[in-house]
Amino acid sequence: MTNIGIIGAGRIGKVHCESITRYVKGAAVTVMAEPFLTEESERAIKELGVPKIVKDYKEILADKSVDAVLICSSTDTHAAISLEAIKAGKHVFCEKPVDHSIDKIMQVKKALEGSGVKYQVGFNRRFDHNFAAVRKGVEDGRIGRLNLLKICSRDPAAPPVSYIKVSGGIFLDMTIHDFDMVRYISGDEVESVYAVGGVLVDEEIGKAGDIDTAIITLRLKSGALAVIDNCRRSVYGYDQRAEAFGEKGQIAISNDTASNAVVSDASGVTAEKPLLFFLERYMQAYVSEVSQFIDCIVNDKPVPVGIDDGLQAVVIGLAAAKSLKEGREVKLSEISM
Amino acid sequence: MTNIGIIGAGRIGKVHCESITRYVKGAAVTVMAEPFLTEESERAIKELGVPKIVKDYKEILADKSVDAVLICSSTDTHAAISLEAIKAGKHVFCEKPVDHSIDKIMQVKKALEGSGVKYQVGFNRRFDHNFAAVRKGVEDGRIGRLNLLKICSRDPAAPPVSYIKVSGGIFLDMTIHDFDMVRYISGDEVESVYAVGGVLVDEEIGKAGDIDTAIITLRLKSGALAVIDNCRRSVYGYDQRAEAFGEKGQIAISNDTASNAVVSDASGVTAEKPLLFFLERYMQAYVSEVSQFIDCIVNDKPVPVGIDDGLQAVVIGLAAAKSLKEGREVKLSEISM
Amino acid sequence: MTNIGIIGAGRIGKVHCESITRYVKGAAVTVMAEPFLTEESERAIKELGVPKIVKDYKEILADKSVDAVLICSSTDTHAAISLEAIKAGKHVFCEKPVDHSIDKIMQVKKALEGSGVKYQVGFNRRFDHNFAAVRKGVEDGRIGRLNLLKICSRDPAAPPVSYIKVSGGIFLDMTIHDFDMVRYISGDEVESVYAVGGVLVDEEIGKAGDIDTAIITLRLKSGALAVIDNCRRSVYGYDQRAEAFGEKGQIAISNDTASNAVVSDASGVTAEKPLLFFLERYMQAYVSEVSQFIDCIVNDKPVPVGIDDGLQAVVIGLAAAKSLKEGREVKLSEISM
Amino acid sequence: MTNIGIIGAGRIGKVHCESITRYVKGAAVTVMAEPFLTEESERAIKELGVPKIVKDYKEILADKSVDAVLICSSTDTHAAISLEAIKAGKHVFCEKPVDHSIDKIMQVKKALEGSGVKYQVGFNRRFDHNFAAVRKGVEDGRIGRLNLLKICSRDPAAPPVSYIKVSGGIFLDMTIHDFDMVRYISGDEVESVYAVGGVLVDEEIGKAGDIDTAIITLRLKSGALAVIDNCRRSVYGYDQRAEAFGEKGQIAISNDTASNAVVSDASGVTAEKPLLFFLERYMQAYVSEVSQFIDCIVNDKPVPVGIDDGLQAVVIGLAAAKSLKEGREVKLSEISM
Repeated sequence: MTNIGIIGAGRIGKVHCESITRYVKGAAVTVMAEPFLTEESERAIKELGVPKIVKDYKEILADKSVDAVLICSSTDTHAAISLEAIKAGKHVFCEKPVDHSIDKIMQVKKALEGSGVKYQVGFNRRFDHNFAAVRKGVEDGRIGRLNLLKICSRDPAAPPVSYIKVSGGIFLDMTIHDFDMVRYISGDEVESVYAVGGVLVDEEIGKAGDIDTAIITLRLKSGALAVIDNCRRSVYGYDQRAEAFGEKGQIAISNDTASNAVVSDASGVTAEKPLLFFLERYMQAYVSEVSQFIDCIVNDKPVPVGIDDGLQAVVIGLAAAKSLKEGREVKLSEISM
Repeated sequence: MTNIGIIGAGRIGKVHCESITRYVKGAAVTVMAEPFLTEESERAIKELGVPKIVKDYKEILADKSVDAVLICSSTDTHAAISLEAIKAGKHVFCEKPVDHSIDKIMQVKKALEGSGVKYQVGFNRRFDHNFAAVRKGVEDGRIGRLNLLKICSRDPAAPPVSYIKVSGGIFLDMTIHDFDMVRYISGDEVESVYAVGGVLVDEEIGKAGDIDTAIITLRLKSGALAVIDNCRRSVYGYDQRAEAFGEKGQIAISNDTASNAVVSDASGVTAEKPLLFFLERYMQAYVSEVSQFIDCIVNDKPVPVGIDDGLQAVVIGLAAAKSLKEGREVKLSEISM
Repeated sequence: MTNIGIIGAGRIGKVHCESITRYVKGAAVTVMAEPFLTEESERAIKELGVPKIVKDYKEILADKSVDAVLICSSTDTHAAISLEAIKAGKHVFCEKPVDHSIDKIMQVKKALEGSGVKYQVGFNRRFDHNFAAVRKGVEDGRIGRLNLLKICSRDPAAPPVSYIKVSGGIFLDMTIHDFDMVRYISGDEVESVYAVGGVLVDEEIGKAGDIDTAIITLRLKSGALAVIDNCRRSVYGYDQRAEAFGEKGQIAISNDTASNAVVSDASGVTAEKPLLFFLERYMQAYVSEVSQFIDCIVNDKPVPVGIDDGLQAVVIGLAAAKSLKEGREVKLSEISM
Repeated sequence: MTNIGIIGAGRIGKVHCESITRYVKGAAVTVMAEPFLTEESERAIKELGVPKIVKDYKEILADKSVDAVLICSSTDTHAAISLEAIKAGKHVFCEKPVDHSIDKIMQVKKALEGSGVKYQVGFNRRFDHNFAAVRKGVEDGRIGRLNLLKICSRDPAAPPVSYIKVSGGIFLDMTIHDFDMVRYISGDEVESVYAVGGVLVDEEIGKAGDIDTAIITLRLKSGALAVIDNCRRSVYGYDQRAEAFGEKGQIAISNDTASNAVVSDASGVTAEKPLLFFLERYMQAYVSEVSQFIDCIVNDKPVPVGIDDGLQAVVIGLAAAKSLKEGREVKLSEISM
């Protein structure tokens, strides 16, 4: 049994707690740390059978019975806690992004060298059945050489402006998943980025210094081209699609729905909207990513998503932000590491 | 150039007139016969460039310049006019059904023997791109041996009760197309029929002695089973589907729409309704069936849908009516020919 | 915590054991009974954390700490064990069918009267997200009055002939789920049945006295018509669809797939096959049905699928078998209860 | 009856000849001009009933019985012939593009001022049932304010390199249709363009100085963003899709197929490929565009696609070419008119 401590009992911390408790074989959440715990959260965590809740995550790091930690605290603490956890010899699963700063990610990377610690970054979408299927199609050569890759990613609703302000901007907060998808599906690296964007959904987002709608074009090392379109609000639900086009064909994925029921009536032929919320949409992926993390620990395998994946997605995000600001194509080599 | 006379300027007569005039190579409508012609119809026919309109169809039969006739008059006149046309040496395209009586159809069949006349029956659905595709799939062995055949056929709206009364009943008026589809798609013959039905759409149809909703099960000579479901009213449009299931797979067809536009919004993901009206849905089929008829005349080929096809569909229809009345499975051999 | 004993550690027993252990809140499998336990099964059960395995189910019935039992033994033992369990005051979840004999089901029904025991029958398909969606659509009046109900149910592969021989025949073994679906989706009762069938998949099934392909037409009390088509082998996977058609429209459901990836290449535009196996297809339903059973016990609610549902499906199955044998429509009132 | 002369009997000239002869009411092709006429072409044109074929298009312009001309000659002659035709008082339908040079298009525009001549540009895709449906959805406010517009346009096969060399490059030859679609669907004007491209299909295209794969991002005046992806070769057929996303939802269109037959077998669930060739895909659009042109002449209406539409698409194309060359976003105002 792998004993897990979860640092942070916010939304994503509770998701992992529930998924491990219920669905992940051979692992148990033995402790959670949260400085600001509501009564409701406390009850929910206890009902899941977590025996211990502490205020200070350092207690978890000091606890010798804990094998691994999940860092689910706010982004600005990810790197610092990662460093402490590595030092304490705990395996680490860190939510994305590791940090907004290349420097800090590089510090984590250096700390990992020779540490024997497993360090996985929380790009859950890699574990989704649909995105995994398109990756597999590309990997298996179903479409031959990849020529064009299209990712569509639209959230059902924009987060509060207070969150937008500390989010690092749309590219590091939202598009970062899509940047990782470009790397994952293509099996290739990004060479340059060109981003255009606008404030089309909510003027408050613009006042907060961010955009809410974007198209990002990427050149990959192989010469293939990729394009991502993002919007912070899609009234019909969480829209997450991908389309890989190559010399021998195309493989495309669309959205999941609660059921495949289709109503035909005087107003048309109507299917269900995509699942509205990321927890519904990606629950299977959350379970799968942590299961694989546990498997890597138990069987000493390399993690499926490592610190370099975390690093590259942030580098692309910073290049996109620079491109948007300067109105020109930005090479990744311009982002100093 | 094949000169064609059309007998009957009702809805289907005008459809054929327009399709030949516009779309059928090597044929011209040189005369139409209609005893009760509205001014509007006359204008429409003239605009299509038909040079001559007569009251009495016998004038057409006597006209030596006419090579072929299309019989588009009311069903009760089909057999008699067919006999006269055959005698006059005209090739005949006769709308379905040839007659409600086996006797009369057999008279036409006998008259055709040795006559050299081409005689095609208007089962237009055989010429539809979708139904033709499912037939081709079965014929090409895509699904191996046929085990189950399902036909769904629902009209957008019931005809007037006055029409119902002279229609011969749902099986000879509406299901007759589906009976022909069972024979066409399977390439097999029907052995027995079991029909259940109800009056679920309009009580007036029941008072007129007919039903408006039915499920008909058929056994084919090969042992395969078929089932047809019918309804006189489908609020979402003309619903015409087929599904052939065999040892190696299934081939299925669904409905055509005016465009493939799909709207995703807060109420769902909505495609267009099926085309609402048989003229929209089957215009391509109308053109194709008459084009092939002309081709058979010009190049002396056998017609694609002959008198035996017309006969068999009526035999199945009569067996279905008998089954409904007597509440039991009826063999086709019980219907005397 | 509700303590559960599972009687029978065959395929379905293990499915329930795994689903309860992993996914069902507030319940634990504290004991399993199986007279013929392989080493592999024993290991699997222990790994799921079941503390006790016994040979004789009577030990479970005698165990005061056990609140409820799941009867997952062979069909011929369901009724007898049910009676004993009721007598022992255990709540019962019984796999379908309760028995092939109306008499025995009636005995269970009588034993339940005044017993205070919750008794749920394992019609898992009622808990499937798709079938539940079509039921909800009908219940909510989305299609108005129901006129036609179509159920398609085809297994990916036929069971061994040895199983066929003791299965009670296709109608009691396979179609019984579809009969229950007709009742569930329509919210109506069946009045009469007409069945045709054939041996089209495997002659050995015919030699065993059964059929492998069938079309069953049903009349419902409301006047609506229903039709089921079955086949024991569908090469493209587990085909489970339904279509409810009414005065205001239609609601239809199709199959689930492992992903929604679509490959477009020189050979066509290809989606995945339906999930091949009932465990993959209905795992969510297995979890949901047992969760609701537990909820009924804990909160003293009526069970969602009771003994009368189990009874009616068998009555329809026996009527279908009689119809097939006698070649005529059979009223349910002919099946003595 | 409107008498039409067609200048150029290449592929598109013959397409228009056939569509007018067969399907366009109230118009006749009375003469065609082609300096290099094969015997096969001559026969085909005569079979369509065109009474006269000439070598020199000037004969058509001099013919007083001709009301309108269709300019279907090579692109480099479009502007010059347009000028002559306008001078001769003929209404003009000119295939796209009017010219690769802004100057020459402006000359045509000036010549049209006060001439009373109807001048339509051959952007056939505006008349396609699917593209028209997405335009209508946007126009009717189905998706509210437009935020993102995506156009996918991929040809089944690259043209010969000899053609590539005189084509004006992918943006003026192929993407020009997509630029027009951006303007048509959005009802908005383009402000700037950013293009990236590569030679991924055929190195010979690269040697000819062109690219074969591209992603073009456009900013519209309203602030909406658009993106086009192009490829010269799609093995699964002619891929022509559009997706308009706005504050209230999305409207998307996909490809047409020869039939909607779907085969389910051991290898998957396979629909037909998109129609392979532009003539199959857009025949309905060719008929419709010329029918509307005739209607504009007869009823003195403004043409649906005028010289300004022809001009704007070329301006965008030139801006895209400049963007690709200079590796930066190019404003349309940089392209001198």
